[in-house]
Amino acid sequence: MNNEKEQERKEQTELVLFHLLHLRDIETFREEFLNLHSYDQAQFYEELNEEERLILYSFLSPEEMASIFESIEVSEEEYKELLGEMMPDFAANMLADMYADDAVDVLNELDKEQVASYLTIMNDEAADEIKELLHYEESTAGSIMTTEYVAIYANETVSSAMRILKEKAPVAETIYYVFVIDDEKRLVGVISLRDLIVAEDDTLIREVMSERVVSVSVAEDQEKVARTMRDYDFLALPVVDFQNHLLGIITVDDVMDVIDEEASDDYSKLAGISDVDDTIRTPFSAAKKRLPWLVILLFLGMLTANLIGQFEETLDKVAILAVFIPLIGGMAGNTGTQALAVAVRGIATGEADKESKWKLIVREGLTGVITGGSCGILVVFVVYIWQHSFVLGLLVGASIFATLIAATIAGALVPIIMHKFKIDPAVASGPFITTVNDIISVLIYFGLATTFMSYLT
Amino acid sequence: MNNEKEQERKEQTELVLFHLLHLRDIETFREEFLNLHSYDQAQFYEELNEEERLILYSFLSPEEMASIFESIEVSEEEYKELLGEMMPDFAANMLADMYADDAVDVLNELDKEQVASYLTIMNDEAADEIKELLHYEESTAGSIMTTEYVAIYANETVSSAMRILKEKAPVAETIYYVFVIDDEKRLVGVISLRDLIVAEDDTLIREVMSERVVSVSVAEDQEKVARTMRDYDFLALPVVDFQNHLLGIITVDDVMDVIDEEASDDYSKLAGISDVDDTIRTPFSAAKKRLPWLVILLFLGMLTANLIGQFEETLDKVAILAVFIPLIGGMAGNTGTQALAVAVRGIATGEADKESKWKLIVREGLTGVITGGSCGILVVFVVYIWQHSFVLGLLVGASIFATLIAATIAGALVPIIMHKFKIDPAVASGPFITTVNDIISVLIYFGLATTFMSYLT
Repeated sequence: MNNEKEQERKEQTELVLFHLLHLRDIETFREEFLNLHSYDQAQFYEELNEEERLILYSFLSPEEMASIFESIEVSEEEYKELLGEMMPDFAANMLADMYADDAVDVLNELDKEQVASYLTIMNDEAADEIKELLHYEESTAGSIMTTEYVAIYANETVSSAMRILKEKAPVAETIYYVFVIDDEKRLVGVISLRDLIVAEDDTLIREVMSERVVSVSVAEDQEKVARTMRDYDFLALPVVDFQNHLLGIITVDDVMDVIDEEASDDYSKLAGISDVDDTIRTPFSAAKKRLPWLVILLFLGMLTANLIGQFEETLDKVAILAVFIPLIGGMAGNTGTQALAVAVRGIATGEADKESKWKLIVREGLTGVITGGSCGILVVFVVYIWQHSFVLGLLVGASIFATLIAATIAGALVPIIMHKFKIDPAVASGPFITTVNDIISVLIYFGLATTFMSYLT
Repeated sequence: MNNEKEQERKEQTELVLFHLLHLRDIETFREEFLNLHSYDQAQFYEELNEEERLILYSFLSPEEMASIFESIEVSEEEYKELLGEMMPDFAANMLADMYADDAVDVLNELDKEQVASYLTIMNDEAADEIKELLHYEESTAGSIMTTEYVAIYANETVSSAMRILKEKAPVAETIYYVFVIDDEKRLVGVISLRDLIVAEDDTLIREVMSERVVSVSVAEDQEKVARTMRDYDFLALPVVDFQNHLLGIITVDDVMDVIDEEASDDYSKLAGISDVDDTIRTPFSAAKKRLPWLVILLFLGMLTANLIGQFEETLDKVAILAVFIPLIGGMAGNTGTQALAVAVRGIATGEADKESKWKLIVREGLTGVITGGSCGILVVFVVYIWQHSFVLGLLVGASIFATLIAATIAGALVPIIMHKFKIDPAVASGPFITTVNDIISVLIYFGLATTFMSYLT
């Protein structure tokens, strides 16, 4: 991984594996393949065709296949396809062997009946664990947590904690934190493996544990969970219900995926597209994702067109006015997007909660005055030099000035209002604010032009 | 943290701490304060004014202050200010006590002379460690790695590895991986604490270690490092030079910051703003960040205006044409941004490297044909119903069709070309592509209108 030599070695290994697979040399294949990291196994798996995958399933145990399935990144349809080509027994056992949270991620992509049938086939313990997680709403702490944690009582000793850890090491998702619970399974403390290692063997857990446990509620939004974990630099975070009962834990690897997902999500919305990160795309599936936005924008654009149509008389008299429509609209759209991006990120990172909304809007307004003033003055000169008309320059400059102030405030205001009504502010992103500001700019520009018509002709 | 009760308790604690600070009750304050998690300590610290901070410095040791400083998130200027108000000795000792990678992050914000003076005051060991890290270029693996890792030789036993871990636990940035080196400090293996715990005491490390170590080169881009870590779900990643010598490690908490940073960065660029995430802003500093883009866009917009000016004659004859300029330009800008966002993310996540660029462009072109065709046909009808002119509808519809194809291809092509020339493709984002597509749309629309003028009048 670190250099070309490594990359080369990796490609060589893959070629050998392909060869062994086709030769159906199960022993040598297993020896080579199981030596790989599960991510590399997954990469190899993703490159196989159906026929090759069927051979692979016959080479591996459901347990070995489980770690591969935890590492692949494919679309909803592909999950269905891959599971469908396995024998139902094999698939169910594989799902049972996966970490419960990862299995739930896969099962969430399937139809209810399919899920039910897999759950019936697999062993009861795994099925119960999965069922427990399946009913949490998407994007909550509950949906990304796992129940495979290590918990002990406060009156046990460090050495017995270490013994439990050794036992649980092969199945627990993380053994680097041990959570301390009371008789009713309420979370009372936490101790890291680091602290356990340093502590004396016969010390009681209650003496070395930290009682100030940072935990998240099971219904908490996953973005907030990710923020807490990042802020505190934790490797795992306990999830509790309202009575502080320990329900599960969230590990850092899942949180990394959340951070990535949420950032992509905001980015997608700013670009006016439902999901920017889908890996397999045909022109049809891509068009399907982009068309809804485009059609909405088309109708919003018609609104703008209609508005300009109201000023047809003005346009008829001074055709040169049309020349500056895209300039003024574009500037409005750009400042609006800038202000909106700052507000959306501020809300996403929680920065914006710290100060009053009014202060933010006043500040954006003043920013608009500065940027609008600078650009406005610049435009007066440029238009004067280019068109030799001071009046036209003044009109365009004044329009830019007023438009930029209004557009900047609108850009900040829209996400704040949406956030207030519990709508994800990123939804209002990019294209939407651009259209709003198009309308603002047309009204200001033609309003001014019509008012001062006598000076223009 | 998990519910309102927790939040309340936190606020209460803060009030008590403020009170104790002002009473100068050092003992009770320390008892309460040092009980907090360092992130909460940092939150408290960020709320103090200068006078209060000076009291705090007199209450705490440089070592205690170090963990606070690792957790605060402030701007460049503020780092300077905060360090400046400490006694130079105190500040230097604090920096020496911080994890080397975090200390380097702070020092990178200071002037060279300041850095040199702090390095002279602090103990040699810490100074050497920091100096080693200081010379790595920003955004490389070297710049985010730390040298506080645990390494052993392959012929030691599991029990001696555990003994070394116990010793290093208080200072190492992570003890959850032990890296195995040979006599020349070359990386030959890795073993997790999880595996160490399960292994028998007298086993040799070489028997239980994994020889397939995934490592990154010291000059590797931090975004790639983050991707590797996320893909493999590692908690730490070793950093090596060209001869595979172990130089340091990168831990998952630093990588989470990188993922967040890079995503924000792409987002900022799509919004046409240099840094969306700066927390303290005055209208002037905000305007300073946004104006450069706006002025560039102003001149690009002038280009579009100039272009439309070329068609003044056409406009003079058919003023209604002006009405649809923002609609067509807007649609072009939006499809372009969609295609660009997909390409930029594809490049950022490495997805785009997997397939041929030509395939991507052909696919985007076909997507443009589908979206352009759908929107074009829709527009013909809407304009016909609204303006009762089939010819005008046909003109606008045909323009939308052609523009969407061209704009989609341009949106995908620009980032690919920039990536080829090793320019960050996100730079070309949002506003830039919007202007390019404005120009494309004007050329197509007025080109068609001028050609078919006789049918329009």
